[in-house]
Amino acid sequence: MNIKITGSGSYIPTEIVTNNDFTKHIFLNDDGSPFLLPNEVITEKFYDITGIEERRYASDDLTTSDIATIAARRAIEAANIDAETLDYIIFAHNFGDVKKGAIQADLLPTLATRVKYNLRIKNPSCVCYDMLFGCPGWVEGVIQAQAFIKAGMAKKCLVIGAETLSRVVDMHDRDSMIYSDGAGATVIEATEEEGGILAHETATFTYDEAYYLFFGNSFNKDHDPDVRYIKMHGRKIYEFALSNVPKAMKSCLDKSGIGIDQVKKILIHQANEKMDEAIINRFYKLFGQATPEGIMPMSIHKLGNSSVATVPTLYDLLVKGELENHSLNKGDVIIFASVGAGMNVNAIVYKI
Amino acid sequence: MNIKITGSGSYIPTEIVTNNDFTKHIFLNDDGSPFLLPNEVITEKFYDITGIEERRYASDDLTTSDIATIAARRAIEAANIDAETLDYIIFAHNFGDVKKGAIQADLLPTLATRVKYNLRIKNPSCVCYDMLFGCPGWVEGVIQAQAFIKAGMAKKCLVIGAETLSRVVDMHDRDSMIYSDGAGATVIEATEEEGGILAHETATFTYDEAYYLFFGNSFNKDHDPDVRYIKMHGRKIYEFALSNVPKAMKSCLDKSGIGIDQVKKILIHQANEKMDEAIINRFYKLFGQATPEGIMPMSIHKLGNSSVATVPTLYDLLVKGELENHSLNKGDVIIFASVGAGMNVNAIVYKI
Repeated sequence: MNIKITGSGSYIPTEIVTNNDFTKHIFLNDDGSPFLLPNEVITEKFYDITGIEERRYASDDLTTSDIATIAARRAIEAANIDAETLDYIIFAHNFGDVKKGAIQADLLPTLATRVKYNLRIKNPSCVCYDMLFGCPGWVEGVIQAQAFIKAGMAKKCLVIGAETLSRVVDMHDRDSMIYSDGAGATVIEATEEEGGILAHETATFTYDEAYYLFFGNSFNKDHDPDVRYIKMHGRKIYEFALSNVPKAMKSCLDKSGIGIDQVKKILIHQANEKMDEAIINRFYKLFGQATPEGIMPMSIHKLGNSSVATVPTLYDLLVKGELENHSLNKGDVIIFASVGAGMNVNAIVYKI
Repeated sequence: MNIKITGSGSYIPTEIVTNNDFTKHIFLNDDGSPFLLPNEVITEKFYDITGIEERRYASDDLTTSDIATIAARRAIEAANIDAETLDYIIFAHNFGDVKKGAIQADLLPTLATRVKYNLRIKNPSCVCYDMLFGCPGWVEGVIQAQAFIKAGMAKKCLVIGAETLSRVVDMHDRDSMIYSDGAGATVIEATEEEGGILAHETATFTYDEAYYLFFGNSFNKDHDPDVRYIKMHGRKIYEFALSNVPKAMKSCLDKSGIGIDQVKKILIHQANEKMDEAIINRFYKLFGQATPEGIMPMSIHKLGNSSVATVPTLYDLLVKGELENHSLNKGDVIIFASVGAGMNVNAIVYKI
């Protein structure tokens, strides 16, 4: 028995926000003091590091579970299965449904339950739960689906990663420019077909790292201290990712028995272009090799960092031929890799 | 290989809130109109139905992850394991860390990460995630731990259920009297010892039931509509639980191959005493039997309904001999059962 992705779907929110749209923002330092650079310089430097030109925000009337439902419906359609045959709906997110303009998350009922409700699935044996695991949530959801299938508890799982980070950003923090909204979903099935998940690797680093990404106050000290936003220690995360993600990817590849030369594409969490490039370069360096051209498809330029949604969205665009100069063929080996709050790192070696 | 609970721990918050403490509350109907009964009559009726005399609230300085840490430390101690050998920390909750007086939940980083950080565990292979599954979250966490162990992905898992519902209740809603705070934790291990998990059953009902428990506005219409609280359609939940929980328990017992006469104790989610009694009576009726005396240990009278924390706390009190007239011996078969938001229902047949 193998375990494969039999269908994928994504939802790209419709509101396009360009770097230019941030030039009217009042950016502050973390101590509340004003930035001495003009916004044009800030956004230019931001672009140079992250590669982000634009990001997408969900329209005001949609929540995370709404956009997840659209991606889920597309994944089920692509897998060509009856939704009633799903054994699990695993929904990875980090902030719940946050209504536009509200500060309180809605987690009751779970977002997985909302998706099942929206899809009008009746079968009570389709078990719904939400999973919080930072940005690597979708990859980890696939690993959990694999566990249920291996344990004989499931044959078909829908794994969703969706987030509306635009609802939890501090507009006085330059880092707000990184974040975006999005949803990706995949159907994971037990199958007799060749390929599928060959190996996986997961790690949670907390001893020094637990609060590298955290919920904190606005840089504008006049804001209510009981209202908090997604915050990060960018430099620490960069160093953390560089030293831990390549190692996790190598450990995963070694377990899979696949040679580095057989890897066709690496689908990495779209956190920051420069960081992602540095991770991949260090990964290849572990094998004494230079990074091959075109190994790493990127969506960050136009889509930003939508947390749990980046990897399944990237996969969906890739298999549907919607990423210029990138394609996949039957038998190709790819690596999924992610890093984020927790601090969590994970990877999957997967054969198409 | 068997899968057993090798240690448990709980934390009973220190603030005792009696029904009497609610007599100064202004209870309203859901349309905002005043209740025409005096509060003394309301609390008396409440007591007759739910069996709750008192409930516990966490002290103002503690959050859900704080009380979970205490329960976790006790479970690890009871299991007599090195915390560094844990493969997973699975944390079931529904609302995240909510600071006293704040309305915004803090979910970043995950509560599982916070517990690992508090316990000073270094091993990055100890994977931490949060799981949202309504009140049946702890039972479902045990089922997930079982999956990881069966799939060869883990040998030792810490499964936590903790919640501070006192921070998300509408004080104008009579149902606020039901809810309490608490934390329970268990270590689940692969073992060669006899017994352990014999069977499990899970179901998620969403078609009509998804929003039986939901996040809604205060009954006081003057309150900010963007602030929401735990709300329920009590009558519908009662009927739902009565028709679905006994069936799930029976299906689980049938799968285990254990006869009804061998069941020594049933540890059911402490939602409401009358409802729990009705569920158990209907369960025995499915076997054509009367409910045996003393089959169902209860903690609700003094501890209220602490959501995910009720079942592991009840188990911990039972194995530690802290429930009057109840005890367990090696080889005894017990059933864990739960029902809650989702709407989720689950059960485990377990041999001590």
